[in-house]
Formats: sequence, structure tokens, C-alpha cells
Amino acid sequence: MNLPGRNINLHISVDCVIFGFSTNQLKVLLIKRAYTNTSGTLSNDHKLPGDFIAIKEDLDLAASRTLEELTGLKDIYLQQFAFFGRPDRISKSMDIAWLTETTGHKIQRVVTAAYYSLINITDTNSDFAIKNNATWIDVKQVPDLAFDHATIITNGLAHLQLTLRNEPIGFELLPEKFTVRELQTLYEVILDCSLDNRNFRKKILKSTYMVQLEEKQSGVAHKPAYYYRFDRNIYEKHKKESLGFNF
Amino acid sequence: MNLPGRNINLHISVDCVIFGFSTNQLKVLLIKRAYTNTSGTLSNDHKLPGDFIAIKEDLDLAASRTLEELTGLKDIYLQQFAFFGRPDRISKSMDIAWLTETTGHKIQRVVTAAYYSLINITDTNSDFAIKNNATWIDVKQVPDLAFDHATIITNGLAHLQLTLRNEPIGFELLPEKFTVRELQTLYEVILDCSLDNRNFRKKILKSTYMVQLEEKQSGVAHKPAYYYRFDRNIYEKHKKESLGFNF
Repeated sequence: MNLPGRNINLHISVDCVIFGFSTNQLKVLLIKRAYTNTSGTLSNDHKLPGDFIAIKEDLDLAASRTLEELTGLKDIYLQQFAFFGRPDRISKSMDIAWLTETTGHKIQRVVTAAYYSLINITDTNSDFAIKNNATWIDVKQVPDLAFDHATIITNGLAHLQLTLRNEPIGFELLPEKFTVRELQTLYEVILDCSLDNRNFRKKILKSTYMVQLEEKQSGVAHKPAYYYRFDRNIYEKHKKESLGFNF
Repeated sequence: MNLPGRNINLHISVDCVIFGFSTNQLKVLLIKRAYTNTSGTLSNDHKLPGDFIAIKEDLDLAASRTLEELTGLKDIYLQQFAFFGRPDRISKSMDIAWLTETTGHKIQRVVTAAYYSLINITDTNSDFAIKNNATWIDVKQVPDLAFDHATIITNGLAHLQLTLRNEPIGFELLPEKFTVRELQTLYEVILDCSLDNRNFRKKILKSTYMVQLEEKQSGVAHKPAYYYRFDRNIYEKHKKESLGFNF
């Protein structure tokens, strides 16, 4: 057994990849890290929302706390998806300097637990984001990032894509009522591909948990489409009864 | 931001849930923890294979190292599936005493990164297991476990079940050639359910990556069945071309 005493300068943090969807873009919530170090060099990059865990704090709670501070949202589903612990993940001089400055400690190694979350952007309180220098940025336009946060986002996106193919989680990102076309666009944007309209409609409408509403779109140039809602109870029931393999 | 200085007595470990399959049982590799503390109380429970990470060691490497020490196997696929970081996960007096005794340090908090792996038991070198007091135990007969290791196994099993429903990973646990019946038994044991024979055969034989061999069983009382093998190349090609949703 290794002597844990060797790990004395070891810290644990949480980082959250918070996905949102608006104007046909998949977005991620990033914090602007504007910081001038002692030699006058300005860091003007971004970072993921995150924090060190407090000594008696559960990791999941640290992640919820971080999310709440930025969005005002409580009780949001956060999914741990990976931890990032490469010994060299703190190596850029700007990152080292920033850590020393903001914590008052010389930090050697941080293992971070990464979480992702799906948020309906319109539910969030933008005052919280503004106060924390946080902005929603298109995942395709992600700017320079601190530490290994670019890798964490790529990894989080891969998890989101995999889950989207296997579970009906896309609805979390849409308003309560939506058209089939809006749902298809969401899938196309997240999976970064184009899907056949007829096949998509056929497949999705076969699902008993897609419930058609009586209301149609209004004020649109084309033929108004029906709105649908997702029924989680029907889905959970269906899932329990299905024992098949999907591969 | 929390002061990471508060986290000074914080350690990181890896724990491995190593699954194997034999005599129609799903098994997990556990280490017997026979230890008498200073007051003479004997701990006679089991623990998962695991270790603290060394200061410059990557988490994935720490997990591979642990696996190799116990099985003699190198380059085995290990999947991180969750981390366990509840502040109270070290609370049983036997666990606290054992940690102090084996490390020479007073350990307050350990966050552990959990990995799982699928092993064909016949490939492993049993000398390594014997030397480390490790034995394969039926997951349904798991004895008393140290720390929160029972929860880690339950969680690892849930991940295994979910992955088995979505990806052809079961083959890792079988010999290179196997019958449809053997494959079905594997699914039934891991998913803890019984599957309809005809449906299973139909579904599985539809997969182009199940390749029938010319060889049949020999020396069996019933009609000898054909052997099959799993073709990973065909599967990977099939996966790339499939863009559908499985839910």
C-alpha cells in the first residue's frame, strides 16, 4: 500500500458542465476568468464552474452548490460522468499563478470530479450568472479554457450524446410543449448530424410517452404543427416492462 | 472559493470491481481482510482490491496496477464508473483502526474512484490472487465488506447491467467460442431475470457480428449446438453506421 502521507498536497474539486439549448444551439455555461498576474500578464480565458470541496462536504452537494450559485436553480439533476486526475493537469503557468493567487496556497495536484447537467435556459435566473461572470456559449465556439477544461467539455458532450441515444433526456432542454420538428433539431444539433425527417417522426411518434396536445402552433408561415409533451410516468412504466437489448 | 488548505487530510484511492463469470455465476474478486486490532478484535471481512494513488500517479494507472497485482493481467480494459466521496464513508471503528495500522497515518477522509472490469477467469493467474488473499465470490453471496464497498459493488453491477443492455460486452466474460445457450445464461445471470429462449435467439442471431463457426459441441447429452464467436470489427463498423435511437 502506498503511504497516503505522500499525497499531502492533494486536493479535490468539482467541475460542472452545464448544458442548455437556445436558438438552435447547444450551449455550455462558462465563467470568464479575467485575471492579471504579478508580472502584469492578463489571463482572458474561461473556465468551467467549479470549486474545491469543503472538508465535510459531499461531492454531489458541492456540485449542486456550484450550480445553484450560478443559476439560482435548486434540485437540478446532476450526473457525475468522470473524474480527471492526471498528475500534470495543473501545468500552465497562468493556471498555477491563478490558483496560488485565489487560494493563498501553493497547489500541486487537484483531482476533479466532473458532473453534467441539462438546463432549460429560460428557467434560470440570469442575475446569478451575471454576478458570477458566467455566460452561455455555443459548444462549437468554446474559447480558450483553463486547465484541462476543454477535455472535460468534450468528454461531457460524448456522455450527453451517448445518453441521448439511449434515454429520453432531450426533453429537459426543451419547453414543456414542443413540436416534432423542434425535437428533431435538438437531436441533430447535439448529435451533430442530420436525421431523416420521416424516419425520425415515425420512430418518435411510436413512443407512447410522446403525448400529442390539442394545441397547434400559431402565427407560423407554414402549416401549423401540433405540440407534444413528454410523459415521464409512461416512460418509466415502459422502461420497467422492457427487458430487451438495444444493441 | 473554499480554502483548499482545509482539505489537508484528504486522500484519494482507487477501488476495482473486477467481474468474472464461471459455473453460471457472476463473480467478483474480493480480498480477505484478516486483521486483529490492538484490543484483540478480529476483523474477518472482505474488501475490494484498491490502493491509495501515489503523488504523481494517474488514477487510471493506479487502477491497472491494482488489477495486475491481483490477476497478473496487463492491458485489461478498466472503466471508471463513479466516485464515492461521502464525508462519513470512513466511520466504522474497524475501518478506522485498520487504516491507521496499515498506513501509519490517521486518515480522516478518502475519496475513491471506482472502476469496473470484465475478466475471463480462466485467463487469470491464480498464484497472484492467492498471494494477495483474493478470491472470486458470487455477487449474490457477497460477505461483510469494509467501508462502503457493498454500495460500490451494487453500483458497479448496475453499470454493468446498463452497459450489457446497450453494448455487446458480455463476450468479454466468455471463452472465445460459445453457444447461444451459454450467452443467454450469461445475460440471465447478470440481468437477474429469465429471458424467452426464442426471442433471445432471434434477436442475437440477427446481429451480423455473431459469427457461426463450423464446429459443434461434442460429448453433450442433448443435440449438439453450434459454436459462435463475436466479431468486434463487424460490430464497430455497424455501430458507426447506426445513428438511430435505442429508447
